Amino acid sequence: ALDTPARIYYKNESVSPSGSHKPNTAIPQAYYNKMEGVHKISTETGAGQWGSALAFACNIFDIDLEVFMVKISYNDKPYRKTMMNTWGAKVHASPSELTDAGRAILSEDPNSPGSLGIAISEAIEIAAKSEETKYSLGSVLNHVLLHQTIIGQEAVKQMEMAGEMPDIVIAPFGGGSNFAGLCFPFLRLNFEEGQNIRCIASEPSSVPKLTRGEFRYDFGDTIGMTPLIPMYTLGHHFVPAPIHAGGLRYHGAGAIVSQLLHDKLIEAKSHDNLEVFEAGLLFAKTEGIIPAPETNHAIASVIAEAKRCKEEGVSKTILFNLSGHGNFDMKAYEEYLSGKLHKFEISDEEIKASLDKLETPKI
Amino acid sequence: ALDTPARIYYKNESVSPSGSHKPNTAIPQAYYNKMEGVHKISTETGAGQWGSALAFACNIFDIDLEVFMVKISYNDKPYRKTMMNTWGAKVHASPSELTDAGRAILSEDPNSPGSLGIAISEAIEIAAKSEETKYSLGSVLNHVLLHQTIIGQEAVKQMEMAGEMPDIVIAPFGGGSNFAGLCFPFLRLNFEEGQNIRCIASEPSSVPKLTRGEFRYDFGDTIGMTPLIPMYTLGHHFVPAPIHAGGLRYHGAGAIVSQLLHDKLIEAKSHDNLEVFEAGLLFAKTEGIIPAPETNHAIASVIAEAKRCKEEGVSKTILFNLSGHGNFDMKAYEEYLSGKLHKFEISDEEIKASLDKLETPKI
Repeated sequence: ALDTPARIYYKNESVSPSGSHKPNTAIPQAYYNKMEGVHKISTETGAGQWGSALAFACNIFDIDLEVFMVKISYNDKPYRKTMMNTWGAKVHASPSELTDAGRAILSEDPNSPGSLGIAISEAIEIAAKSEETKYSLGSVLNHVLLHQTIIGQEAVKQMEMAGEMPDIVIAPFGGGSNFAGLCFPFLRLNFEEGQNIRCIASEPSSVPKLTRGEFRYDFGDTIGMTPLIPMYTLGHHFVPAPIHAGGLRYHGAGAIVSQLLHDKLIEAKSHDNLEVFEAGLLFAKTEGIIPAPETNHAIASVIAEAKRCKEEGVSKTILFNLSGHGNFDMKAYEEYLSGKLHKFEISDEEIKASLDKLETPKI
Repeated sequence: ALDTPARIYYKNESVSPSGSHKPNTAIPQAYYNKMEGVHKISTETGAGQWGSALAFACNIFDIDLEVFMVKISYNDKPYRKTMMNTWGAKVHASPSELTDAGRAILSEDPNSPGSLGIAISEAIEIAAKSEETKYSLGSVLNHVLLHQTIIGQEAVKQMEMAGEMPDIVIAPFGGGSNFAGLCFPFLRLNFEEGQNIRCIASEPSSVPKLTRGEFRYDFGDTIGMTPLIPMYTLGHHFVPAPIHAGGLRYHGAGAIVSQLLHDKLIEAKSHDNLEVFEAGLLFAKTEGIIPAPETNHAIASVIAEAKRCKEEGVSKTILFNLSGHGNFDMKAYEEYLSGKLHKFEISDEEIKASLDKLETPKI
């Protein structure tokens, strides 16, 4: 379909029970909680992929789960909510009336569509106020990124089986677990074996923390309840545009990935929401699998690199993470196919205004 | 979860691009049409599994596809429609104003929720009235059943690899392709090698053509446009209850399967719609995969046989067809989980009344 000399591979994480790579960390997190005698976990979810993965994992280990789901996703993707219910989890639309954080947001804006940062605040508050409840996070933090490296470790072996190593490795970027999961094991080959594999993080141009954010300390949540993390951020008050890629609607980036980017050991690209659906549709028609909107960001980067190969007449090997299927995102495809999707532009002034609100330490 | 001495295997057809076994016949049908120079195909779909499989297949071979989707499913499962659109198919809610058959139904009942039989009539009419359009069917007919035997052929080899042969083979029953696909290759072992493998077709108790229908000639569609088929039927005018298993809401049964049942070479069981969702939920919580409602009928039969093994203290090997995932059926799970699903009973009088309307030849 691309008429490119590039050879393109993908790691298919979309066939897990919950439909994405998220069980790679959900299952160990639930397991370690079980070993510690924990009977209840709280968490948040944006697009619902993390929430359903943890619901699946908690179901396996007989742990109660309470999920705060970003309200706009709760309304747009009711099937994800029901999937979590099917595995026994309780799901609340966030902001909710169940927490101080949620009530504070609602008192300012009763119609708040929610954000991942707000939902994190609510889930943390539930855990902080309860003796027996622990909090679990699906991305950003170091242990989550490291759990996900199973993706890249498998991919290294699989590329060896295929008889070639990638020149370029690409993954979508929300908080970092998807990208780190695939790329870290390839970065190890760069660091230890002197290879020169380019690793590209693909983010939405409407949530451009890696490409246009600031590297400084910031909170992981909106209210400011988490420890400070050195990260590329747009500011924890930043309200991402309502794009159909809930998992990427997050203001910040995990610490390790942020440092790697700061040290120019990895790259970041951004793509607007029309470009990513165009990429996703081409992939669906070519390969049969309809990808999650988050995944489409990686595919947009792959297509850009494959086209460059054609222009330059070079044959590169490209690997990307097909991190999830789009079976629960058909409303987004419907809007794209019917021409109802429009671009979200963000100005330098808007980014500066959000960062100016920060009182957290600079690096 | 069942504490049974039975050993249970399943053939997983839910990981195909469109999420079910249907591409097994959609792809060859599209291929042979392409070889014949056909540029346009019409078809119908109940739950949307067949429609999306054929949309996927026609996309591969660059054939236009027009799908008549039973209106109740069109409204309940808009994501299936969008999936078909994503692969380039046109989808109409049936009954539609586009055909004489649709207009006739609508003039009698403007609020008709549609049925598989009506949708078949509409799709056939489109093909019959057009020089260049061919009609394609996803079950019932002999060639479709035979395409699907790839399921059972693979399963025979896989059971050999697992080192045991099933005592009981179970599949859901709509028109017959799901059941025939898995069971025919095992029946061959019965006929040619003298084995004694029980093959069970699982149908909804609200659409009991195999367990309570009549073996006679009937039409495959509601209007009476198809050739007459010797089949177990409830009568082509039969309007199935609005259960959440659109693929099984069909009045008749394929000819080969019907003859096999008549000759007592296979068995049929029926399950009510609450029992099947209870079975599906147990499977989802135990295995992680949320099955399609159609598939849940087979699981209900598996559980019944596994419980019998426990009661009788015998260890049987059971194989069933996990024919599809339930990612597009979460509304049905939602209704089940919230207690809104109720049983549909059907009386002998209702069945008799429907069969009495038939003027087709008896056998």
